[in-house]
Amino acid sequence: VENQLTELLGMKYPIIQAPMAGGVTTSQLVAAVSNAGGLGMIGAGYLSPDQMRKQINEIRELTTENFGINLFVPSQFKAAKNEVQTAVDAMKSFKHELDLDDELPELPTYEAELEKFNEQIRIVIEEKVPVCSFTFGIPSADTVSQLRSENIILVGTATTVKEAILNEKAGMDAITVQGSEAGGHRGTFTEEDGSLIGLMSLIPQAADHVHIPIIAAGGIMDARGLAASLCLGAQAVQMGTAFLTCVESGAADVHKQAILEAADDQIVFTRAFSGKNARGIKNRFITEMREVEQQLPDFPVQNTLTKGIRGKASVQKNKEFMSLWSGQSPMLAKSETVEELINRVVMDAKKLKDFG
Amino acid sequence: VENQLTELLGMKYPIIQAPMAGGVTTSQLVAAVSNAGGLGMIGAGYLSPDQMRKQINEIRELTTENFGINLFVPSQFKAAKNEVQTAVDAMKSFKHELDLDDELPELPTYEAELEKFNEQIRIVIEEKVPVCSFTFGIPSADTVSQLRSENIILVGTATTVKEAILNEKAGMDAITVQGSEAGGHRGTFTEEDGSLIGLMSLIPQAADHVHIPIIAAGGIMDARGLAASLCLGAQAVQMGTAFLTCVESGAADVHKQAILEAADDQIVFTRAFSGKNARGIKNRFITEMREVEQQLPDFPVQNTLTKGIRGKASVQKNKEFMSLWSGQSPMLAKSETVEELINRVVMDAKKLKDFG
Repeated sequence: VENQLTELLGMKYPIIQAPMAGGVTTSQLVAAVSNAGGLGMIGAGYLSPDQMRKQINEIRELTTENFGINLFVPSQFKAAKNEVQTAVDAMKSFKHELDLDDELPELPTYEAELEKFNEQIRIVIEEKVPVCSFTFGIPSADTVSQLRSENIILVGTATTVKEAILNEKAGMDAITVQGSEAGGHRGTFTEEDGSLIGLMSLIPQAADHVHIPIIAAGGIMDARGLAASLCLGAQAVQMGTAFLTCVESGAADVHKQAILEAADDQIVFTRAFSGKNARGIKNRFITEMREVEQQLPDFPVQNTLTKGIRGKASVQKNKEFMSLWSGQSPMLAKSETVEELINRVVMDAKKLKDFG
Repeated sequence: VENQLTELLGMKYPIIQAPMAGGVTTSQLVAAVSNAGGLGMIGAGYLSPDQMRKQINEIRELTTENFGINLFVPSQFKAAKNEVQTAVDAMKSFKHELDLDDELPELPTYEAELEKFNEQIRIVIEEKVPVCSFTFGIPSADTVSQLRSENIILVGTATTVKEAILNEKAGMDAITVQGSEAGGHRGTFTEEDGSLIGLMSLIPQAADHVHIPIIAAGGIMDARGLAASLCLGAQAVQMGTAFLTCVESGAADVHKQAILEAADDQIVFTRAFSGKNARGIKNRFITEMREVEQQLPDFPVQNTLTKGIRGKASVQKNKEFMSLWSGQSPMLAKSETVEELINRVVMDAKKLKDFG
């Protein structure tokens, strides 16, 4: 099977490690994936320009292979006073339970987010990062043409056929289609209603409507998911949860353990951690915030408001208040090294389907 | 590839036509599927024992091949007076718009539903229907053993690994795993939270936890979906929407046309038509009932309350008030005969993967 994408991204195997933000994608993880024949990706959404530069250099010490970086595209958000107050009131008792004070953190503004994004883009160009992917939207035409003129390969994210077409029109080299199975934040940037589409539907419909290569993301953990994605019309897979439980990942041990012990029906959506819909393991925070979930401020304001809770819970190894992001296939998760995972997937896939 | 299931169900190809209730599965459709090498299924959930017997005999005039029937397993439901009143109030203006009177239909009771179900089981046994599948629950141990002693092949429905295991334990010969992509009603019969699982996640996790053959259902419309499902661990697919738009299907033309014109992101869930979560094309009824959706009585009470509206809208070819059930892949739908559909899927699948 001919595969433009592995060549384009410089990977031996059509396996991309999802750019999970929030400390999961350590330099060790990213480099191990690229060294094992996949494409490692830095989840840089929350990183400062300095942190980004530092990690890019670290990775270059660990691998000579290609790797990529993912950025969050800022968009206007809603955070009315009463929404912030609803969040503060709803979380007051959790803060006391975790021994946190009531101080309100400085809240993000769209202008500051945009400035940070532009700084991040500057670093990507200066450091000549081979691959740059985007979530939560499509960058401006100027930014896209600037990156393209530097020969940086661009990958967009789509959750519907419409979003896939918008990404292609904007000049992306490839698209990650994020199925409803995916863990963590939804990449949806158009209408939310009707955007939770399973990969069995999303991959073939997207493949019929765009000409650039498609990367499948969501619930894919092993050779079966890889082979199925290729059958459906994708040229590669992006795996998140499968890499999250790897030895090299920076996820908290309590997070890894929770995934290894979870059943498929414990994985739910919540808006409560960040103000944006995201998939993870159901816990007390998700359950007890259900009632006010739709009245909270948008991302990234709610994310900033929960930062203290998530941080303290993590220190206390208290999984009831951590965002335990996971895709819908936790029962396929294993504790192993990146090399073991990739070799297992590749060996098993060869038995299932010749993917060249 | 060895496939116990095609042998068990007596099909040439691993393609089952979903038992869509409400007049879609005409005798012509069911027989055409079985004659073309698949397994045709009667959606008998809403049929009276007499209607069932009549259709079984009609099908036997049209084919000598195996076919199946699907029944709804009744369960206790909630229909408080205030819920019924909420429904009546919310639909009053629609009834006027459609020139319907305000008369309240006779509402179903659990006892009557159970009696009807037992009658249906009696017909299945008397008529020796080769395959009987179940949705919305698992029949009693007595019913299962009665059917098994008559050598009727039993197929359960599961939307989570837990439900798959319960079906296996109850003595089902095979399980249909219904992904979140699927059109029409959810088969969920345990906790609803966490039960919307995409096939990319549901098939392999279920396959790892049960020993009986798995049938994949949800968003599968062509060879790509068939090949992918087999890669993931299923032994056959059950296609609904793909057969709904076929010439032989009894769906209203306006319903078929709406699917042929729909985009992936227009397919949403609603509880408003029946009191049970179901997937279909967004229209005025779904949108305008959103606000009260969670305050309506359970299935089948709400279904009875909307019967007049759905019926009159269908006569008027008014798609804004019909339940336009569809899976998440409407952009893969075609208008063709059953034989054309099955031949196309089989020919294309041979190119993708040898499925024996």
